[in-house]
Amino acid sequence: MEHNLENTIALLDRTPAALDALLRGLPDEWTMRNEGEGTWSAFDVVGHLIHGERTDWIPRAKRILEFRDTRPFEPFDRWGHMRECEGKSLGQLLDEFAEVRTQNLATLRAMNLTQDQLASPGRHPALGAVTLSNLLATWAAHDLTHLHQISRVMAHQYRESVGPWSNFMGVMQCAGHSA
Amino acid sequence: MEHNLENTIALLDRTPAALDALLRGLPDEWTMRNEGEGTWSAFDVVGHLIHGERTDWIPRAKRILEFRDTRPFEPFDRWGHMRECEGKSLGQLLDEFAEVRTQNLATLRAMNLTQDQLASPGRHPALGAVTLSNLLATWAAHDLTHLHQISRVMAHQYRESVGPWSNFMGVMQCAGHSA
Repeated sequence: MEHNLENTIALLDRTPAALDALLRGLPDEWTMRNEGEGTWSAFDVVGHLIHGERTDWIPRAKRILEFRDTRPFEPFDRWGHMRECEGKSLGQLLDEFAEVRTQNLATLRAMNLTQDQLASPGRHPALGAVTLSNLLATWAAHDLTHLHQISRVMAHQYRESVGPWSNFMGVMQCAGHSA
Repeated sequence: MEHNLENTIALLDRTPAALDALLRGLPDEWTMRNEGEGTWSAFDVVGHLIHGERTDWIPRAKRILEFRDTRPFEPFDRWGHMRECEGKSLGQLLDEFAEVRTQNLATLRAMNLTQDQLASPGRHPALGAVTLSNLLATWAAHDLTHLHQISRVMAHQYRESVGPWSNFMGVMQCAGHSA
C-alpha cells in the first residue's frame, strides 16, 4: 500500500499495549535471554524502542521540517538502550515506552502534516536521500521488525524443547536479522 | 532452556491478549492483506490459531496420554482456518481465540502432568517419534512462529513506503517462512 499516515499512527498507537500484553510478568527465561553473545533479549529490545522514541523518529521529523535535506540526521546509537535499561525492570521499561510513545504521537498529530510536507526530502547519514513519508513509515515498520525479532529470540529459547518440530517452524529458521 | 511447563503456560496465556492489542481495530490494509497468492494475512493466522486450539494441541496431548505412541496423531489441516474464518470479522476471531485458549489452558492445568507423563512418547504422522513435552513446547513456539509471521506480513505492506530503510530492517529480508 501507499504510505498512509493514519495507518502508520494506528499501528504505532498499538505497539506498546501489544508488547505489554505479551511480556509483562512473563518469566525471565523468556524475556531476559538472547540468541548468544552480542545479541538482544526482549528486555533489550524494549529499551531500544524507548531510545528510538527519544532520539530518532520525532527529532528526525523535526529536522526535515526545519532544514529539509540540508542537514543530515544525527546518527542513531544502536547501543543507546544500554543506558535506557540500566537499573530498570521490564515493567518499568514497558511503562516508559507507553509514555514516550503517547507523547510522540501527540507531537506527530499536532504537526498536522500536509501531503507536501510528507514529500519533503531529508538526508540520512548512511542511506542518503529519504522523505519525511519514508521516515514515518519506517517508524511503524521498525516496531514490526522488533516484534519479529522478539518472537524469534523467544522461540530460540525452545529450540531444543520442541524436538523434531523445529523443522516445521519458520521462526526457527529465520535469518532476517537487522543490520 | 529445558522445557518448563509453567513457562509454556505463561506464554500461551498471554498470546490472545497480545494479538488483541496489536490487531483489534487496526485498518484492513494491515490485517487483511497477505504476501501474495497462497499466503496468509494476519486475519488468516488468527483463524489458523483457533483451528489449532480445536484440532491440534489438546487432542494430541490426550492421544499421547491414552495411547502413547501406538496411535499416530490425526494429520493437521493447514487450510482448516478457511472454515473457521468464514463470515467472521477479525474482532470475532480474536474473541473466539481468547475463549478456546482459556478453555484449553484450563484442560491442560487439570491434567496435572507429572515429569513421567511429560516424557511419554507419541507419534507424529510425518515427524515420527515425539514426546508430550515436545508437543507442549511446540504449542508455545507455534504462537511465536505466527507472531513472527504476522509481523513480517504486516511489514511487507510497507516495503515500498519505507524507501531505502528496507535494507536496514531484518523483517524485510526474512525468509523464515513455515513449511
